[in-house]
Amino acid sequence: MDNRPNFLRLPDRSVKPRTIGLTHVLDKGVPLLEVESVTGKANEYIDIWKLGWGTAYLDSELSEKLDRLHERGIQACVGGTLLEAAWLQRREADCLDWAAEVGVPCVEVSNGAAGMPMRDKRRLIQEAARRFVVISEVGSKDPSAPVSAFEWADEIAGDLEAGARWVLTEGRESGTVGLYSHDGRVREDLVAGLVDRVGVAPVVFEAPRKEQQAWFVRRFGPNVSLGNVPPDEVIGLESLRLGLRADTLPVPEGVAKAQVRP
Amino acid sequence: MDNRPNFLRLPDRSVKPRTIGLTHVLDKGVPLLEVESVTGKANEYIDIWKLGWGTAYLDSELSEKLDRLHERGIQACVGGTLLEAAWLQRREADCLDWAAEVGVPCVEVSNGAAGMPMRDKRRLIQEAARRFVVISEVGSKDPSAPVSAFEWADEIAGDLEAGARWVLTEGRESGTVGLYSHDGRVREDLVAGLVDRVGVAPVVFEAPRKEQQAWFVRRFGPNVSLGNVPPDEVIGLESLRLGLRADTLPVPEGVAKAQVRP
Amino acid sequence: MDNRPNFLRLPDRSVKPRTIGLTHVLDKGVPLLEVESVTGKANEYIDIWKLGWGTAYLDSELSEKLDRLHERGIQACVGGTLLEAAWLQRREADCLDWAAEVGVPCVEVSNGAAGMPMRDKRRLIQEAARRFVVISEVGSKDPSAPVSAFEWADEIAGDLEAGARWVLTEGRESGTVGLYSHDGRVREDLVAGLVDRVGVAPVVFEAPRKEQQAWFVRRFGPNVSLGNVPPDEVIGLESLRLGLRADTLPVPEGVAKAQVRP
Repeated sequence: MDNRPNFLRLPDRSVKPRTIGLTHVLDKGVPLLEVESVTGKANEYIDIWKLGWGTAYLDSELSEKLDRLHERGIQACVGGTLLEAAWLQRREADCLDWAAEVGVPCVEVSNGAAGMPMRDKRRLIQEAARRFVVISEVGSKDPSAPVSAFEWADEIAGDLEAGARWVLTEGRESGTVGLYSHDGRVREDLVAGLVDRVGVAPVVFEAPRKEQQAWFVRRFGPNVSLGNVPPDEVIGLESLRLGLRADTLPVPEGVAKAQVRP
Repeated sequence: MDNRPNFLRLPDRSVKPRTIGLTHVLDKGVPLLEVESVTGKANEYIDIWKLGWGTAYLDSELSEKLDRLHERGIQACVGGTLLEAAWLQRREADCLDWAAEVGVPCVEVSNGAAGMPMRDKRRLIQEAARRFVVISEVGSKDPSAPVSAFEWADEIAGDLEAGARWVLTEGRESGTVGLYSHDGRVREDLVAGLVDRVGVAPVVFEAPRKEQQAWFVRRFGPNVSLGNVPPDEVIGLESLRLGLRADTLPVPEGVAKAQVRP
Repeated sequence: MDNRPNFLRLPDRSVKPRTIGLTHVLDKGVPLLEVESVTGKANEYIDIWKLGWGTAYLDSELSEKLDRLHERGIQACVGGTLLEAAWLQRREADCLDWAAEVGVPCVEVSNGAAGMPMRDKRRLIQEAARRFVVISEVGSKDPSAPVSAFEWADEIAGDLEAGARWVLTEGRESGTVGLYSHDGRVREDLVAGLVDRVGVAPVVFEAPRKEQQAWFVRRFGPNVSLGNVPPDEVIGLESLRLGLRADTLPVPEGVAKAQVRP
């Protein structure tokens, strides 16, 4: 069915199942029909489908959603806040059992919302990794929390050692904390310091805004892993990765700006 | 069909038909298919479905929308600006007749757009209340209009006496006027003064933004009535009400922040 | 099937096929199902459906999208950045051949992203106009680029002479460049200077935000052509055009503001 055009040279792009260049979508509770229509079109562009925070707990269509995602080669993932909420009530084992029972292949383990000690986070990563692909998360959801490349790198290394497959770096749905200043700008020193220490490959940068996605693609190329992408922005992100949008269009040096006038 | 998980203790939540804790959705003119998919999933979480401002007048699928909402136990409501527009042309009786004829169960009566005198607003509430559930609205859509808790409380009391079932407090779709300053922050003194005088129960606070919704849930608990919720944020709001999102996760005092480090 | 209400006097509105008062939608890569549901409802309100930047190149459902749009009397248009990307690789002829082959009726010719010289832009307009309806675009996507009414008017005149049917004025999807300052406000002097020179009719003003749309409707009436309208805001825009939303409600002078109090 590939009757798509091929008149352009495009950058090399990783293909599914991807280990780098992941697109990680944040589902804030969309209807089943939207899952079907979005993933029908873009299934080759979506790797992880995160059922945001505790929405999976409320979702009367969860079972059908999981079926559809599975059929289309997309890994559904339970949001980390649900496991944090369960941990606060000492029900984390029940939470993981439920996730296994409903057939979610992937679980996020975070500690940014409930003040979970690191030893509990690591224990949860280890336990979850026996049955699930684990994505851990570093960073607080509190915009006033201090952020340090050294501490994040250290935490990422420990999470990976405990069994996490990838590590999300916090940006939230808003793109205004963690990786970003309150106005959404990338904290470039933080990213540079982080990548110096752990590399790009294990990190999924939460990047909900187009400008943020474009920054990461310009900085690390098309195969950077990006997270918290809105479902209806998946094709837009793919076009950014491939240089098909103004923000990442590969304009040759020198040729360009001077020639704008007739 | 309730095969949903139950491993968490959640706060008590009012159930339909609700008198408190309403979720009031703002439909800016979405297609019928989106009404069907959104309300299929979240029908137990949606109480009022507002056909924003004059969109119902233009909607070629109105009849099917109303059928679908009725089937799912959701009350459709005509936006107040349509009745204000009719009032400006002295056609308010025709507007109410039309609403009755097409079968809308609920009508909003506002005076924030057309400068309608209070006596006309009250007369319209009385007339509409004979055939419809009436939701009135207080507050101007003009961001520079002065806002007073005393005057709003007074107007709310009068609207209720005239026959309004609930009263919306203005925030618009943008969340930047009335209840909110221009940057979207809640005017906390206004809300406190208002609730002191009329209580929480009769008020539906327009709260289009997640941060605004979270503020009201933290302040008044899960069963505060919130309005102008975007259709695709209904599940997100329900998760906020139930403490399943970081913004409202019930983290015990003292336990938390100190333990974040390993 | 026109059982819509008619109790209001509304301003005269152009009808399809429109030469003025166009609504030009920006599709950032929505699924086929959304095209179907949006255009089913609002087909009489949508004139041009722009497949934004290079998304058409990636769209596995392009053929079905084009069929659906054609059936509903809506002209699909390839975004200008795709042709700019092709021009950078000297494949512009292939790009136009492909567009003709898949059956896109309309092509955008822009030079805001790749620094294309004006002579190449004009040549592309001429070539494209042999097979397509051509919409050209003026303005840079660079927020720091200087903007001059005189130069834009000059470029618009030249584009029209070369064969463009309408000319888009840049605002981007964000509404923060070209016609707008970085905070989204309309550059009123620019618009006035532009319209003085070329009139309103040939221009499609990119106006993604509601406040921007409302400004143009208040300034130029219901039949101003507006572009980069999000698919789910089409009905909202139509209600703005017709004075059915607070922002454009025709409130008589003097009657209004003084009467708000009882």
